[in-house]
Amino acid sequence: SSEGAVIKATPEGFSIASADKAFLLKLRGYVQMDGRFFESKADRSGATTFLMRRARPVLEGTLFHVFDFRLMADFAPNVPPLWDAYLEFRPRKEVRVRVGRFRPPVGLERNQSALNVPFIERALPTDLVPNRDVGVMVHGELLGGVLAYAVGGFNGTADGANADSNIDDSFDLAARVFAHPFRATDLHLLSGLGLGVAASRGNQFGSASTTGEAPLRTMGQQTFFIFRTGAGAGQTVMAHGEHTRISPQGYFYAGPLGALAEYVNSTQEVNLGEQHARLRFEAWQATATWVLFGGKAAYEGIKPTDPFGAASGGWGAVEIGGRYTELDVDPEAFPVFADPTVSARHAKGWGAVANWYLNNNVRVAATYDHTTFKGGAVDGDRIPESVVMSRFQVSW
Amino acid sequence: SSEGAVIKATPEGFSIASADKAFLLKLRGYVQMDGRFFESKADRSGATTFLMRRARPVLEGTLFHVFDFRLMADFAPNVPPLWDAYLEFRPRKEVRVRVGRFRPPVGLERNQSALNVPFIERALPTDLVPNRDVGVMVHGELLGGVLAYAVGGFNGTADGANADSNIDDSFDLAARVFAHPFRATDLHLLSGLGLGVAASRGNQFGSASTTGEAPLRTMGQQTFFIFRTGAGAGQTVMAHGEHTRISPQGYFYAGPLGALAEYVNSTQEVNLGEQHARLRFEAWQATATWVLFGGKAAYEGIKPTDPFGAASGGWGAVEIGGRYTELDVDPEAFPVFADPTVSARHAKGWGAVANWYLNNNVRVAATYDHTTFKGGAVDGDRIPESVVMSRFQVSW
Amino acid sequence: SSEGAVIKATPEGFSIASADKAFLLKLRGYVQMDGRFFESKADRSGATTFLMRRARPVLEGTLFHVFDFRLMADFAPNVPPLWDAYLEFRPRKEVRVRVGRFRPPVGLERNQSALNVPFIERALPTDLVPNRDVGVMVHGELLGGVLAYAVGGFNGTADGANADSNIDDSFDLAARVFAHPFRATDLHLLSGLGLGVAASRGNQFGSASTTGEAPLRTMGQQTFFIFRTGAGAGQTVMAHGEHTRISPQGYFYAGPLGALAEYVNSTQEVNLGEQHARLRFEAWQATATWVLFGGKAAYEGIKPTDPFGAASGGWGAVEIGGRYTELDVDPEAFPVFADPTVSARHAKGWGAVANWYLNNNVRVAATYDHTTFKGGAVDGDRIPESVVMSRFQVSW
Repeated sequence: SSEGAVIKATPEGFSIASADKAFLLKLRGYVQMDGRFFESKADRSGATTFLMRRARPVLEGTLFHVFDFRLMADFAPNVPPLWDAYLEFRPRKEVRVRVGRFRPPVGLERNQSALNVPFIERALPTDLVPNRDVGVMVHGELLGGVLAYAVGGFNGTADGANADSNIDDSFDLAARVFAHPFRATDLHLLSGLGLGVAASRGNQFGSASTTGEAPLRTMGQQTFFIFRTGAGAGQTVMAHGEHTRISPQGYFYAGPLGALAEYVNSTQEVNLGEQHARLRFEAWQATATWVLFGGKAAYEGIKPTDPFGAASGGWGAVEIGGRYTELDVDPEAFPVFADPTVSARHAKGWGAVANWYLNNNVRVAATYDHTTFKGGAVDGDRIPESVVMSRFQVSW
Repeated sequence: SSEGAVIKATPEGFSIASADKAFLLKLRGYVQMDGRFFESKADRSGATTFLMRRARPVLEGTLFHVFDFRLMADFAPNVPPLWDAYLEFRPRKEVRVRVGRFRPPVGLERNQSALNVPFIERALPTDLVPNRDVGVMVHGELLGGVLAYAVGGFNGTADGANADSNIDDSFDLAARVFAHPFRATDLHLLSGLGLGVAASRGNQFGSASTTGEAPLRTMGQQTFFIFRTGAGAGQTVMAHGEHTRISPQGYFYAGPLGALAEYVNSTQEVNLGEQHARLRFEAWQATATWVLFGGKAAYEGIKPTDPFGAASGGWGAVEIGGRYTELDVDPEAFPVFADPTVSARHAKGWGAVANWYLNNNVRVAATYDHTTFKGGAVDGDRIPESVVMSRFQVSW
Repeated sequence: SSEGAVIKATPEGFSIASADKAFLLKLRGYVQMDGRFFESKADRSGATTFLMRRARPVLEGTLFHVFDFRLMADFAPNVPPLWDAYLEFRPRKEVRVRVGRFRPPVGLERNQSALNVPFIERALPTDLVPNRDVGVMVHGELLGGVLAYAVGGFNGTADGANADSNIDDSFDLAARVFAHPFRATDLHLLSGLGLGVAASRGNQFGSASTTGEAPLRTMGQQTFFIFRTGAGAGQTVMAHGEHTRISPQGYFYAGPLGALAEYVNSTQEVNLGEQHARLRFEAWQATATWVLFGGKAAYEGIKPTDPFGAASGGWGAVEIGGRYTELDVDPEAFPVFADPTVSARHAKGWGAVANWYLNNNVRVAATYDHTTFKGGAVDGDRIPESVVMSRFQVSW
């Protein structure tokens, strides 16, 4: 019966929809089980461990054709329960209005789904851009998809962090323009080229309990930079003033090849008691990937053409890749705002990855990341971090 | 195939049911993204912010015709994850037995769904009634719906609070009778009149870690009354003895007009070291709303007759409203049990609201609330609170 | 439409599947609302209370025929949000590979679903086996189901506890073999006999913040043994060295009769400052149940043949049972590693249970548990615990 309701149970997911697709509910989710294996036992701060990296149910859908919603939680340990929760009104491709909690349009790799990022952990520029924030965003695609734009007002987050509420009375503005200049031309080889620039600006005024600052982490998810904190008044560094970010970014996908690069400059005014400074953090990364067989490279992820488990008896797709990434802390941060024996002033790392996308739903990945530091130890430089990570991922 | 299973994807929700409706699962949820904008920057305790007020998936359904279940979580920050979780046996309309976690039958506005409360935040009487509690309740409708009753045993909660477990060895009794005296008559104009009275009674014995007391909050969700707490023995006020509530309540809905009023008297015995008192808190509110176009007023919420997004091209429904509310703290509370320079002894507020129900699923709201206080500051009265709130709500 | 998608809404659950069953999503969940009523008011550490024991949504399914997934959260208060999250590849019955978070194959009652354990709370051996852990497990059934095996690598947990990550650099190995020796024979009366042995071995090295030790709890969920902790260095007992467990176990189900017994021996090396010891904990239990009418006993739970709520007007199934259980702490633990006036060195308890399985989805249970102790009080033995527990359970 059900008056023509449409049910789907496919590699692309499970859903219920009305016959005219005006009402649609997708029942999605994903789970990532990782292993982290650190090389140098004596000095590493991370423990070799298995861990549930993400365990996320997702409810999303459409109401009355033009309203979309999304609710995504995460049950993994030590993360906030809420990730995405928004309502989007999309009368047309050119104008979409989104309100709620979602990713501000700043970091390029940060805005790629955790399901599709080629490496197990994102590169260092992600330390400097917002993760999730609450706000209002207008976005859309112009000129038949050649130009995408997004501009929104948000609470404002510390670098690399989430924000549940505003810590001051000012909202942050974030915006991005991103072009696929050859998408509408006959130069098909270049149709996968995307170039853009994103920026954010706002004021952050922290307090002793909510400093407005977040630690910086390596690819192995270990803290390598943290501002000074203390019990007494004037012993904790707080965000105090303007916070701006600018990020030129781009990618290129052509057949089996993929490349993604981004640079982020984040400048934040901070206070420690009477002392004030305007500190600049910079990071960049370049990632290149190659699909050996079974699919095409894409920012939106690889769809194996010959999936494992299907009647055709395929083997899915295999992708390999490498990357290089650096992060620079403002030298002015030391020694007043950060302890040079604890926090590094520079990190650079390279990594390699192999991904086996068995099918649309199952992925097995392994990465190696090697990161070296300047400063950050009592006697000079923090010990380099060498970490092998593994991931089993299922999504539906 | 599916042997006649019935699938729905409609404005009323998404569901799966067996052909005979004996088994039914509804896949529901809602998200509310709010803005809070406080007027007086210098003195307000609240920060101007966007926030996710509620992000709630809901699973509910029917098993074997007569058993209902409901499981509702909330992923919003700083709230407990579990809200509703219960089993209900309903052999007939007259007798329903509910066990689990749900709203005790005390506050009238508290028992209205957060989706349908006309204002963005409930009025002051909600500070004095239970939110969620764990217990057993028998309820039902008699005389063809003219009389509704509910009576249950619960752990017992502090005013305005949730309870996960009992803090003493005594259970609370809560009961309500509510009549629609004209529902079965020909006086259709009065059929939307409902009048009732609710009450609860129990003992609460708090400890230093679980005092059995909760702070009182303004419409802007700022604390304006809190009992004394301290580090040493005898420096923290604890519930210690009988806790009774009584609440006459009623509403009237006729065409576009709606009115709701309630009064709550909550009396709690408390201890501070050797000192004991029986303190009475009183609050009341009156709310009136008017649907300008597109629907009828109802306690269960407005269903737009001409929804936005439908083929008919309607504009949904618009509702405006106003309210007045007061709360009185027992003068005996000061200065022994509460600090008069911190906690106000009286709050009164008025507010205005405009709601645009675009359709059954999407609502946009704006409210203004102005609240004034007696006491609660070092030099007399706490600064009045003026707050504009906005809300974007999507439910499915 | 939906190209033959199969929808189910039955006592066995709600699900969506593709026509060939290659893709399947089950929308499950369960809620347990308990009451705990302790006898001796003066000395009991537990408060008489209602509580939500479990409130668990479950998403599970199949992808491409051979990949299964499961995601189970719990929204009950004071428990971690994530319980199960795994991916399983099962090319055949004989070989299944599971990665993620799930129950290691050690405790027999622990590995029985909370929906089907006959008593409201598990017996004392469950205090000594892992609850949930993150790891990789290969398991399967050989000889047509006569022999089941499981072997896996895990982070390693303290006794009775969950582990989110590894607290040292060593992984634990856990394994189990379990036989139904008569399943393939003509001795049908003995086909429900299962016998096995499980073991785990690994190193645990705790720290002051994560000791690698967990308290032991009674059936009333009150702590009766806890290692010493203190603020200064060398005042907190930490796991420090090898941790081994061995557990012979078995059950027998024949018609209405059920019996389950298990023994667990857990040995853990611990440190307190300079002092080191290898401590052995032992526990065992025996449970017997009898289905008075309406179903057959089974490890996987009772399916009422004549369900309440069905057209046939049945009454479901009723089961009664009893159990005896003991736990011994190594005498070497006292007084250095545990305070004999706080922690008991021995606990033994017996209990009785009555279960009414109204149908596949609704269960009402009541238990009585009486536990006595040696040691654990300033003046000799901890006061015996007598607790009546009630449970209302709904699953779908």
